[in-house]
Amino acid sequence: MAGQQRYLRYIVFALVAIILLLFISSSSSVPSAQWPSYKADQTQTAADPSTNKPAVPQTGAAKDSTATTPNTANELPPATAGGERMNATFVTLARNSDIWDIAESIRHVEDRFNRKFHYDWVFLNDDDFNDEFKKMTTALVSGTAKYGKIPKEHWSFPDFIDQDRAAKVREEMKEKKIIYGDSVSYRHMCRYESGFFFRHPLMLDYEWYWRVEPSVKLFCDINYDTFKFMADNKKKYSFTLSLYEYVETIPTLWDTVKNFTSTYPQHVVDGNSMKWLSEDDGKTYNNCHFWSNFEIGNLNWLRSQAYIDYFTSLDQAGGFFYERWGDAPVHSIAAALMLKKEEIHFFNDIAYYHVPFTHCPTGEQYRLDHKCSCNPKDNFDWNGYSCTARYYEVNGMEKPAGYEKEQ
Amino acid sequence: MAGQQRYLRYIVFALVAIILLLFISSSSSVPSAQWPSYKADQTQTAADPSTNKPAVPQTGAAKDSTATTPNTANELPPATAGGERMNATFVTLARNSDIWDIAESIRHVEDRFNRKFHYDWVFLNDDDFNDEFKKMTTALVSGTAKYGKIPKEHWSFPDFIDQDRAAKVREEMKEKKIIYGDSVSYRHMCRYESGFFFRHPLMLDYEWYWRVEPSVKLFCDINYDTFKFMADNKKKYSFTLSLYEYVETIPTLWDTVKNFTSTYPQHVVDGNSMKWLSEDDGKTYNNCHFWSNFEIGNLNWLRSQAYIDYFTSLDQAGGFFYERWGDAPVHSIAAALMLKKEEIHFFNDIAYYHVPFTHCPTGEQYRLDHKCSCNPKDNFDWNGYSCTARYYEVNGMEKPAGYEKEQ
Repeated sequence: MAGQQRYLRYIVFALVAIILLLFISSSSSVPSAQWPSYKADQTQTAADPSTNKPAVPQTGAAKDSTATTPNTANELPPATAGGERMNATFVTLARNSDIWDIAESIRHVEDRFNRKFHYDWVFLNDDDFNDEFKKMTTALVSGTAKYGKIPKEHWSFPDFIDQDRAAKVREEMKEKKIIYGDSVSYRHMCRYESGFFFRHPLMLDYEWYWRVEPSVKLFCDINYDTFKFMADNKKKYSFTLSLYEYVETIPTLWDTVKNFTSTYPQHVVDGNSMKWLSEDDGKTYNNCHFWSNFEIGNLNWLRSQAYIDYFTSLDQAGGFFYERWGDAPVHSIAAALMLKKEEIHFFNDIAYYHVPFTHCPTGEQYRLDHKCSCNPKDNFDWNGYSCTARYYEVNGMEKPAGYEKEQ
Repeated sequence: MAGQQRYLRYIVFALVAIILLLFISSSSSVPSAQWPSYKADQTQTAADPSTNKPAVPQTGAAKDSTATTPNTANELPPATAGGERMNATFVTLARNSDIWDIAESIRHVEDRFNRKFHYDWVFLNDDDFNDEFKKMTTALVSGTAKYGKIPKEHWSFPDFIDQDRAAKVREEMKEKKIIYGDSVSYRHMCRYESGFFFRHPLMLDYEWYWRVEPSVKLFCDINYDTFKFMADNKKKYSFTLSLYEYVETIPTLWDTVKNFTSTYPQHVVDGNSMKWLSEDDGKTYNNCHFWSNFEIGNLNWLRSQAYIDYFTSLDQAGGFFYERWGDAPVHSIAAALMLKKEEIHFFNDIAYYHVPFTHCPTGEQYRLDHKCSCNPKDNFDWNGYSCTARYYEVNGMEKPAGYEKEQ
């Protein structure tokens, strides 16, 4: 009996000890209710390991109280959205001199969207990026930043271009004061964005892209994955602003498009957005285009035989150099003719600024719900030079309440 | 024996059950390692309950795939820093017409700092704030936003001011093209910021303040609680930019200060920053002042008898109206004479812009570590018109490596 009792006492002691241990270990894993603090985020990566600094002590322990603040607190990781990630990247064409304008754009994109998703960012340049550009952008991007040089053959005059004729056009456009009319590099840029960026080796790893230019702003919080939205809803191309192109920059573009569609009728899909491009069933172009400095789109579509045939036809016609075709009408016409109209998306909730235009969502409650900081008076959507009202009409969509007041 | 065995079996069963229960309850509180998703933040409050919307389904479930994006995903709460909270608030003097400029400032302060801390924000106005201003700012502030009207007696000419004399001064300053020289409201503002804001009923609830003006920018991440830093390190006043005041706006200010210090010698502390204000031990003022559109400071100090005696002396002298004394030299002289020099702090890590000056921390690695997006070429610190080099010297602080290159 004494042995049995001792046995019992051991069991009770073990039981108490186990309960105590479990209680201690479980209570240490209960987050504090009021101000949870999170562990360092393992998912964030940076191309430059120099930015991954070891944690340093809290500022309260600063050695010299008269010194300036060291801001040495442990890095607080951003809250990160859950869910599946898309195979997507931001993409920016930039020069080293754009560094501070790019910094502003990255801050806006990270603060309003990417700090919650950590998508990668591909930077492309016709020259080598310098260390200052790479270090600073790597520090600001929450995903992996990658840097690519554009191959010479994608940023130069093709053999079939008559250089004298192209030079003469630039002179004429300069006299007519057409914006960027005399610029060679602007033409290379438009041609590159039209036909090559999605074929850069760094871009081949991805299916989705979000194009970001220097000095752009985002004004509303974006709390969902825009890439996943595109995929889930079978979207291929998207926009926030649309407007009429300067006709002087594209006098023969539409005829070239018509040559393409008669040569490749199989690339024109039923249920497209021709009505948005033309008031007369395709006879003439109304110059409507999506403003392509903002784009979220599908790279596989741009890499499809249909789009490559389209770009090649346009490129052979020489209008990138003999006129001044922009990548905006080139992309827009492709999207409007070679995608079903349901495959094009208007991101009304992405409030966006690129000099000189702003898209600011219509309706006060909408802006409050999305924490928008844009001035509704700046909204371009219902201005007579915008093609967004036409987009609503062609797609049979109801315009948002209050749009009349912004016209 | 059978009873004993049953007894034993009960204990073993209870032990297993308890272990199982504790295991289940403890494992449910383990955060998911890869993409933690957080519950709605209970600590965030808003003065306007209309902004606290119920969560709506994920965008993937959008009804109409041709519609514009609804951005209806569950609100993702910001990651929140742990630790004790200070009794602190942001404070902004603004008019309804400042709404979009204030929106920009709030975005910067929230994105770089307050989304992690959720401090309150007090808005003060000499008029009533309208609904648009209140709704928008409440939506953007992560703490509680409060709105106060300034009492008439704090925003008007005191009885003892000779209105004709004051009007004549404004005429003369207008002719001399002195900035804001002919403005009545600017003078009320300077007097209010000098002597009254910290006594507004809404401010009496707080011990610490951070002053924010419209259209300011912050360029570096601030990952620690600046208010707690001030408290832990016994700081009372702080700055990011310093410069020389326009002497035409304060011709008799220093004489008035000398009258105050001879009347109240007990308010002047040993170990103060007189050397920063004067090259001749207080005989003359060198016009150095902290730029008070940015301030993090202690409200109890401003509400102390010493500061109230100081402000009352200055106010009685009439210089807010007979000259154009700014709150910057008024606050700065008080801090430099009535605080120990260790109680004034230079927030080197708060990269700050207010037209036309920028404080951008010196040293590339420092800026990378703090994720700063400011252009170092814009840094004003080592410019000849800044008093920050003098601040370093008076406090025996070593200037940061590379400062010579920015001179």
